[in-house]
Amino acid sequence: MKEIKTIGVLTSGGDAPGMNACIRAVTRAAIFQGWKVYAIYRGWEGLINDDIREFSTESVSNTVQRGGTILKTARSKEFLTVEGRQKAYENMVKYGMDALVVIGGNGSLAGAMELAKEHDVPVIGLPGTIDNDLYGTDSTIGYDTALNTIMECVDKIRDTATSHDRIFFVEVMGRDAGFLTQNSAIAAGAEAAIIPEDNTDIDQLANFINRGIRKSKNSSIVLVSEKDGGAMHYAERVRKEYPQFEVKVSILGHLQRGGTPTAYDRILASRLGVAAIEALQEGQRNIMVGIKDDQIVYVPITRAIKLDKPIDKELINVLSILSI
Amino acid sequence: MKEIKTIGVLTSGGDAPGMNACIRAVTRAAIFQGWKVYAIYRGWEGLINDDIREFSTESVSNTVQRGGTILKTARSKEFLTVEGRQKAYENMVKYGMDALVVIGGNGSLAGAMELAKEHDVPVIGLPGTIDNDLYGTDSTIGYDTALNTIMECVDKIRDTATSHDRIFFVEVMGRDAGFLTQNSAIAAGAEAAIIPEDNTDIDQLANFINRGIRKSKNSSIVLVSEKDGGAMHYAERVRKEYPQFEVKVSILGHLQRGGTPTAYDRILASRLGVAAIEALQEGQRNIMVGIKDDQIVYVPITRAIKLDKPIDKELINVLSILSI
Amino acid sequence: MKEIKTIGVLTSGGDAPGMNACIRAVTRAAIFQGWKVYAIYRGWEGLINDDIREFSTESVSNTVQRGGTILKTARSKEFLTVEGRQKAYENMVKYGMDALVVIGGNGSLAGAMELAKEHDVPVIGLPGTIDNDLYGTDSTIGYDTALNTIMECVDKIRDTATSHDRIFFVEVMGRDAGFLTQNSAIAAGAEAAIIPEDNTDIDQLANFINRGIRKSKNSSIVLVSEKDGGAMHYAERVRKEYPQFEVKVSILGHLQRGGTPTAYDRILASRLGVAAIEALQEGQRNIMVGIKDDQIVYVPITRAIKLDKPIDKELINVLSILSI
Amino acid sequence: MKEIKTIGVLTSGGDAPGMNACIRAVTRAAIFQGWKVYAIYRGWEGLINDDIREFSTESVSNTVQRGGTILKTARSKEFLTVEGRQKAYENMVKYGMDALVVIGGNGSLAGAMELAKEHDVPVIGLPGTIDNDLYGTDSTIGYDTALNTIMECVDKIRDTATSHDRIFFVEVMGRDAGFLTQNSAIAAGAEAAIIPEDNTDIDQLANFINRGIRKSKNSSIVLVSEKDGGAMHYAERVRKEYPQFEVKVSILGHLQRGGTPTAYDRILASRLGVAAIEALQEGQRNIMVGIKDDQIVYVPITRAIKLDKPIDKELINVLSILSI
Repeated sequence: MKEIKTIGVLTSGGDAPGMNACIRAVTRAAIFQGWKVYAIYRGWEGLINDDIREFSTESVSNTVQRGGTILKTARSKEFLTVEGRQKAYENMVKYGMDALVVIGGNGSLAGAMELAKEHDVPVIGLPGTIDNDLYGTDSTIGYDTALNTIMECVDKIRDTATSHDRIFFVEVMGRDAGFLTQNSAIAAGAEAAIIPEDNTDIDQLANFINRGIRKSKNSSIVLVSEKDGGAMHYAERVRKEYPQFEVKVSILGHLQRGGTPTAYDRILASRLGVAAIEALQEGQRNIMVGIKDDQIVYVPITRAIKLDKPIDKELINVLSILSI
Repeated sequence: MKEIKTIGVLTSGGDAPGMNACIRAVTRAAIFQGWKVYAIYRGWEGLINDDIREFSTESVSNTVQRGGTILKTARSKEFLTVEGRQKAYENMVKYGMDALVVIGGNGSLAGAMELAKEHDVPVIGLPGTIDNDLYGTDSTIGYDTALNTIMECVDKIRDTATSHDRIFFVEVMGRDAGFLTQNSAIAAGAEAAIIPEDNTDIDQLANFINRGIRKSKNSSIVLVSEKDGGAMHYAERVRKEYPQFEVKVSILGHLQRGGTPTAYDRILASRLGVAAIEALQEGQRNIMVGIKDDQIVYVPITRAIKLDKPIDKELINVLSILSI
Repeated sequence: MKEIKTIGVLTSGGDAPGMNACIRAVTRAAIFQGWKVYAIYRGWEGLINDDIREFSTESVSNTVQRGGTILKTARSKEFLTVEGRQKAYENMVKYGMDALVVIGGNGSLAGAMELAKEHDVPVIGLPGTIDNDLYGTDSTIGYDTALNTIMECVDKIRDTATSHDRIFFVEVMGRDAGFLTQNSAIAAGAEAAIIPEDNTDIDQLANFINRGIRKSKNSSIVLVSEKDGGAMHYAERVRKEYPQFEVKVSILGHLQRGGTPTAYDRILASRLGVAAIEALQEGQRNIMVGIKDDQIVYVPITRAIKLDKPIDKELINVLSILSI
Repeated sequence: MKEIKTIGVLTSGGDAPGMNACIRAVTRAAIFQGWKVYAIYRGWEGLINDDIREFSTESVSNTVQRGGTILKTARSKEFLTVEGRQKAYENMVKYGMDALVVIGGNGSLAGAMELAKEHDVPVIGLPGTIDNDLYGTDSTIGYDTALNTIMECVDKIRDTATSHDRIFFVEVMGRDAGFLTQNSAIAAGAEAAIIPEDNTDIDQLANFINRGIRKSKNSSIVLVSEKDGGAMHYAERVRKEYPQFEVKVSILGHLQRGGTPTAYDRILASRLGVAAIEALQEGQRNIMVGIKDDQIVYVPITRAIKLDKPIDKELINVLSILSI
């Protein structure tokens, strides 16, 4: 195995708060080892098009608290092709990169695996996504911040919901995963959460109404995952089936991705970034570094992106008890 | 003129942050005078339906920082009728209310004037609306908080907008008034604002594009007032007319109404609340108490709700210079 | 074992954000079981002096987001005596309380154990303290919020620290435990943390200076635990031993205890509150309900309050690598 | 009068949130005119030592929301001497600066006047200080943000103050001016404010105690200006003279200077920055640009720094009524 002296780092896919804290940790931990660090801009697109510059310790000063990603991110169609990945590999060779650290979600880590397999390049993945949908890690960088952002938005909506007497359907991000929806519903004291994982025959809306919406309450807030039509779909159903209720919809949208990261995300990002460099030093490759029981763990990337992470039934139970 | 010993206080129309700080000030200033205070719940609806209870100093403890309105608010169709207002008046008589303090926007103050005219009741209006569209006062209770809420949302959206390379159209509340849109665009460092007041023949979107969108910039944020189709309308135009740009839409929605009030709104609400009681003591009636040049002023309600408040051209100039 | 039909709930010791979310969960989960809930005000003091009232589902409405504790808290000298605890027990009998749920830190749970032993009363402890110093639980209610509050304060101090060229010593709460100091240092991007656990012969300050303070940096922020003289002590040492540096001190103080709880703390508090009622239903007694590996666990109170929780060396390593 | 083609901009004295928004506005408005902009680092110190570089439109991208000052600031002893100012002037000549824009407080503007008088250089001052103690402008850049920061801190302290039953003395910045103390007391719902302007024979503390501290309240928060011993002094007096009360002290310290600026401060900073360039274009010199009645005004620097700005008695009245 070749000794590592130079690495590249990039962010890919949707941006997530804490990515900068992670870039900072990767950069400084590598320099601490005496390695050289190349920052690759705009994800795979930048690796293909040579949008690359060397980073020093100072390059990441004053970034731990900033949202978004200073390396920018982009979707790359070219990288989905063998030719695109060949070009990417050639730039790695050009800069003498011995390994790559890739911060991103499902699709980004899948791309990294392709490159690793075709060109025998050591790759370390770090889970950066607000969706928390990667298997093998308790949390992903950005999830805790998005959770708090959603909660703060719902706190504000509750002010107006209780001032009037209304049902609010609030649509939350998370792609196929209901973690953000379920947990922000508990945190915000919402009355119900409608999530993709609950794909039984049970009609979640009818269930909520029948459980006695507004029996002892004058207003209700229901969080809805973006999948399957989202908040608008359920609001229309209520308007048709239960016209006695006044209904409002709020789609939180892209603001859920931004903002200064929470303490949890900054610490997680810092720990994972340092651990990625240690993993490379140990000769690890093609793994995702995650957190499990507050300890650093290594997960084969192939498992991290393929297996489903289930939602704990306890959480569903907690929400239904607390909304009485 | 009858000496005042008992007042009623209510909030009406859309809720606005700072209304609670204002209710607190009205209550304590009246009690400080030795008066009795009746809190009327759910606006005019509560005055008609006798949803009323007496307030003490403690009733408003720990409310200065809370969003929404503890008195709740509602739209009342019945109050729009002569019979409805007759019932409302009868409840005033029942409780011995010598005057009313009404916190709300345009419609609420218009309703107060009707009641005042028909039943010769002294009424003091206080400007409570995030829209800042009342004539005769530099600011309204809730406007500064909404401005900051919008700015914080756009700060978050900017994180993701600059991480990718996108144009964002963000839709902002304000009904027919562009204050929130124009000023939050300056505060958030947005590239442009499209407001109802700018109702000239000029095509604001074409103007923005031609001014050189993304010339030196990789992302753009345009704030759009909710009127006339809002953000969705402009996003669709860009998609059709300028397909080279990637466009996203965010509709901020009801969260703009909520949240803990800013220092400015709490101080404004406190000053106006105290001033309303002083105005009643002086024998004033059928006026709105406002703020002008940081001094308390009285404005005839009829003028406050009828005249338009213009947007300063200087602000439009500032935004266009700063977005170069 | 007697079937439980009625419980009391109290908060004791220092207040912590999330206590209200926990009171809410305990109350609603008990009512969900068909039990009666008595709220005991001002901790043990209120149990002794009969400062008690029944709670309904509505009693805890709109509290999930509020800091502090609606049950208030107090230090009780009388409860430290056998006679005091006898009076407390008599009030439990008077109200027919079959069990107690006690939310608090080390001292509060120790008091609960005394009562349990002397009067054979089932007691469930819930970890409510910003210090995170209870054994057997990964986190305590309030810790995550305090961590974020400290981080936000240090973010602000960094603005002024980097604008001038200064060393700031910032003093952080945590009693004998360095969790808040160590982790907020990582989160805030501070240059060093001086914590009680690092009680070796090594001089932490000299260590920090020799590691090359301000070598590549123009300003430094050092977080210091409140123990052993705190920030003032170290600032004075720098002024004497390294007079070339300009030094400032900031003691964060009581604001670290307050504020609306974070999502993590609200969810943790909600889960623990529901679990406390389930534990009672299962016949558990004299345990603390905690969280371990994101799962509910039961810990004998005697162990929770006696054993030390160590700080992970990995975190100390992360901070020293990232501050290069 | 010489036509202006090149300007220098600097920040001096204590940093204030919004300074970056102002630097951005000055830079872009000048470039909009076709002028050249030199950024001077570390205040007068940088003008003397040639710590200067040219700014483009991009130099100030993404700064509108950042606290502190990207130009840094420092106290300069050398600039207090004739020789120092001579060196500063020589660097102006070297770079061809036709005018200076100086953002800062009292001392900074006084320094600017000295330079202007000795070397016949056009200088425009912009009021940048959290203290709001400059005559001729309703507000200064940073004041609104500091007000909100203090209010948020006191909101947190109130959580813990009401959970226990305590008097808190909270010490607030503001040098010789009580604006921050008085207004944050109203905003935070504090029970009293002790300010330097109230320098009558009346004992403000005795006054507060006699007005019936904790009569109907279980906790009290008193804000105290930093002058004359501050919070510690009053806490000690209470401990001696009124030992029946439990007293705590909190000194907010340097975090009051930091943080992302509020909407008000960003808009004010943007308007003043644009207006400074317009003033230079009109041939103005040796004035401070301020805001009065929401309109841009010019104030001779000599007046701005010499005259006292009084606190409105109405505000003192409002606080004492609302704390009943």
